[in-house]
Amino acid sequence: MLSDIEIAQGCQMRPITEVAAAAGLDAEDLELYGKYKAKLSADVWKKTADKPDGKLVLVTAINPTPAGEGKTTTTVGLGEALAKMGKKAMIALREPSLGPVFGIKGGAAGGGYAQVVPMEDINLHFTGDMHAITAANNLLCAMLDNHMQQGNVLGIDPRRIVFTRVMDMNDRALRNITIGLGGKVNGVPREDHFMITVASEVMAILCLAKDLDDLKKRFGDILVAYTFAGKPVYARDLHAEGAMTALMRDAIKPNLVQTLEGTPALMHGGPFANIAHGCNSVQATRLAMKLADIAITEAGFGADLGAEKFMDIKCRKAGISPDCIVLVATVRALKYNGGVPKTELNTPDMSALERGICNLDAHLDNMKKFGVPVVVAINAFPTDTAEEMEFIRKHCAERGVRVALSEVFAKGGEGGEELAREVLTVLDEGKADFHMLYEDELPLEEKIRRIAKEIYGADGVTFAPAAHKELANITDMGYGSLPVCIAKTQYSLSDDASLLGRPSQFVVSVRSARLAAGAGFVVVETGAVMTMPGLPKVPAAEKIDVDNAGVITGLF
Amino acid sequence: MLSDIEIAQGCQMRPITEVAAAAGLDAEDLELYGKYKAKLSADVWKKTADKPDGKLVLVTAINPTPAGEGKTTTTVGLGEALAKMGKKAMIALREPSLGPVFGIKGGAAGGGYAQVVPMEDINLHFTGDMHAITAANNLLCAMLDNHMQQGNVLGIDPRRIVFTRVMDMNDRALRNITIGLGGKVNGVPREDHFMITVASEVMAILCLAKDLDDLKKRFGDILVAYTFAGKPVYARDLHAEGAMTALMRDAIKPNLVQTLEGTPALMHGGPFANIAHGCNSVQATRLAMKLADIAITEAGFGADLGAEKFMDIKCRKAGISPDCIVLVATVRALKYNGGVPKTELNTPDMSALERGICNLDAHLDNMKKFGVPVVVAINAFPTDTAEEMEFIRKHCAERGVRVALSEVFAKGGEGGEELAREVLTVLDEGKADFHMLYEDELPLEEKIRRIAKEIYGADGVTFAPAAHKELANITDMGYGSLPVCIAKTQYSLSDDASLLGRPSQFVVSVRSARLAAGAGFVVVETGAVMTMPGLPKVPAAEKIDVDNAGVITGLF
Repeated sequence: MLSDIEIAQGCQMRPITEVAAAAGLDAEDLELYGKYKAKLSADVWKKTADKPDGKLVLVTAINPTPAGEGKTTTTVGLGEALAKMGKKAMIALREPSLGPVFGIKGGAAGGGYAQVVPMEDINLHFTGDMHAITAANNLLCAMLDNHMQQGNVLGIDPRRIVFTRVMDMNDRALRNITIGLGGKVNGVPREDHFMITVASEVMAILCLAKDLDDLKKRFGDILVAYTFAGKPVYARDLHAEGAMTALMRDAIKPNLVQTLEGTPALMHGGPFANIAHGCNSVQATRLAMKLADIAITEAGFGADLGAEKFMDIKCRKAGISPDCIVLVATVRALKYNGGVPKTELNTPDMSALERGICNLDAHLDNMKKFGVPVVVAINAFPTDTAEEMEFIRKHCAERGVRVALSEVFAKGGEGGEELAREVLTVLDEGKADFHMLYEDELPLEEKIRRIAKEIYGADGVTFAPAAHKELANITDMGYGSLPVCIAKTQYSLSDDASLLGRPSQFVVSVRSARLAAGAGFVVVETGAVMTMPGLPKVPAAEKIDVDNAGVITGLF
Repeated sequence: MLSDIEIAQGCQMRPITEVAAAAGLDAEDLELYGKYKAKLSADVWKKTADKPDGKLVLVTAINPTPAGEGKTTTTVGLGEALAKMGKKAMIALREPSLGPVFGIKGGAAGGGYAQVVPMEDINLHFTGDMHAITAANNLLCAMLDNHMQQGNVLGIDPRRIVFTRVMDMNDRALRNITIGLGGKVNGVPREDHFMITVASEVMAILCLAKDLDDLKKRFGDILVAYTFAGKPVYARDLHAEGAMTALMRDAIKPNLVQTLEGTPALMHGGPFANIAHGCNSVQATRLAMKLADIAITEAGFGADLGAEKFMDIKCRKAGISPDCIVLVATVRALKYNGGVPKTELNTPDMSALERGICNLDAHLDNMKKFGVPVVVAINAFPTDTAEEMEFIRKHCAERGVRVALSEVFAKGGEGGEELAREVLTVLDEGKADFHMLYEDELPLEEKIRRIAKEIYGADGVTFAPAAHKELANITDMGYGSLPVCIAKTQYSLSDDASLLGRPSQFVVSVRSARLAAGAGFVVVETGAVMTMPGLPKVPAAEKIDVDNAGVITGLF
């Protein structure tokens, strides 16, 4: 089989103006970035204001293998299948981060015959949104350090700075640094940290903001530090929010691309779900619902992270809710959850599958708690055996859960028709009765406990003294009613990546908490999860190349 | 008078496709970035291969005030004037760095009625070239630190890493940092430094490369570190050059914009001339010469920095040479050079002007050494008096040098017609007899001495022991025949910003040297010049804003 990039490069793309036209958008609604990418102008909102919202399908997954579960692939393929069946469908995806492109994971634009294109552009700079976020984030940091250097009128305590620099790179050496060295003209020495750009509160704000005014207000609300007297210092105290918003003027506009089969796809915002809230922008999802009868979106990593945050953060903030959930499972990941090492997942192993199926059960039980009907999508791999597939089908049938084989990786939209039919049946039945896991009023520590118990299956939660203190502080400051955004490993339902399957009798360890007042949630870090990834022994970057005609190879 | 941004926002821009058409380019030659920006496809080279080169005009300046001399403004206005007079002219400019936009200097797209537009886009992210450079530079750094972390097979000495991270921000706190802290999983601790992106060797390489293959070869040639055994380690040893080139695939294409009067302008590459080689890309300059009969380009800061590097680096590498030099002078800068503080430059002061005119003389003497005829452009300010202007005119006449008043800031192209006529006369006379200041074979220290004596007017040069040693090392490694790129303050002909006018009896202090093998020159740092600027007490960023309709204010 061809590689993802070979398939993508073999695609005869339609001009993006044509793709847009099919979705009811004309040239005036677009700002072109080359022939195959465009941003949607803010006027599209006015144009579609009177249209009723389409249905919303959320694609999520069981706990993945390190290679991922094919959530984006399934989302793309489902959109293509629905389009093939004559439905007006639009896909709303996250945009990839540069960091992992050069690390292990490779690209994040789907796979096989279910990709969005132009794949190379999307995986590299795309329309510059990530770079705008990096610049806005780091401008705020430069203004903060400059304020301390220029007399520190606000009395910022260099030991209590909570907003850090970011870079869109897997670069572990920047996790813990000291800055401002070299004497008086070179700044105030202090400890700092770089996170990867997708973990920035600026990214979360982009994903949750309604318009430029809302963006600016939220930027102003970012908590950057505390003073020596213990008072909070916000970005607005540094007068940074206007320039930050100017830097994001174009980034706030959703990006339009197409699938290999020409189905329109919005890609906008790309926070990771392990260290951030993991959903594409509210604007893009809502526009997809306006422009199509069925909008299909995704939430990062497993349903314990992405789907929980989709419901409890994104839906809460945006006033939307899914009509159907597609839960992606693979034979490989179920075997991985059954204890098979990742190097041996190609070998048929029924007993490992039987041991690992409990992970699927956990997520099915969890999704019930949100009141949204589920379709399990078995994302097919060539190494899966008929017996393995049949086992999953039978297991779902016994549980009374809809299930469909998805062969979109190998066959594109055609391979997603069984899944599309199940989804359409669910949408026609209209049985979704959405509710969130907790109310705003629940105290912060209780919110964390509820997620840990109800979703992760934990016995309880322990809070490091610093986390306990900071949660109390955040509550005292008046932010106790915000939802929580838990940073946690994606490989386990627990906060320990080595506990596979459906772990029980464990306790979640909260090591720190941080107010993201602009985004409107409280970030809670558990276990050993890191907000800046590192490169592996042989980075994917070593294989990436481009010839003199500009043809890129080695992206996957 | 309206502010620059108000004038720019009042401009009825032509679609960039129309601007391109007037320059002989059709839709297939363009990759659009919105309606008013485009990148030129690599095919334009083939299309123009048989056309003879147009004439080349270089715009440079005397030593500036901290507000700049209006070099870009003059370049833009001269292009507009030539177009107004029926000439086929094209402008080739540097693209702005984000850092200074938020600091003191503000935008870098010309001023008044001689600007390139869309001004806000150009001054913020433009087409993403700066971000691509930042990413390519920092990917190499991440791969370097990762190599040390993952066993350090090459034996890289963490005390001898010569390639540093960059950020497109004025951020002094990042000048001197320690990274890799926090124990084994968080990297190898070492000292590091951030430069501003425009000082990156990646930027220099972009500006000098012929095509993608050349870009990749040069990236591979970047010296990143030495081993414990003292051997050089290049980017190619880390297998980084392919991915770096993939990141720069679009950045290598010149950007097309327009002046307020619709004259085509290429903006591509933007190194600072005080800390880098200060010229826009060879590709853009050469394309402007192919696409027009007269190409007008600029070189950063005063002629001691920008013009010297234009001749000795850019012309040497690209095999081009200017047919005419425009030397921009202002009454204000001459008074500044005569000792008037920058806050009092609006007051008429003939004696300061008489004291400061020696700075103009120095640059006129210097330009003669390159064999290219000069026209002095007096860039008019409303505060200039007739007596002051007349003094400069008369001084030039006495020296037998052509001089013209340039009122392009206030009047656009119309205000540049006197200058354009003088330039056309010089071009018609065809008296340029270009030669560089030194031959390749001259030893590195001798090259530095020649520039210091012939251009700066120094008595000599002292080398810090580390600089002396590194220059010897670079020569031993076989790079002794490269040209030198001197980092020096722009405010003085000397390496001491406080020595104004035409200093004499001084010695230039070289504090360090660094091989830029990919760019093909040796960077030499003098005096106290810094490769990472800081923000001022009240950063320009505090005044920048954008409304809900996306209209930006506070850029200047």
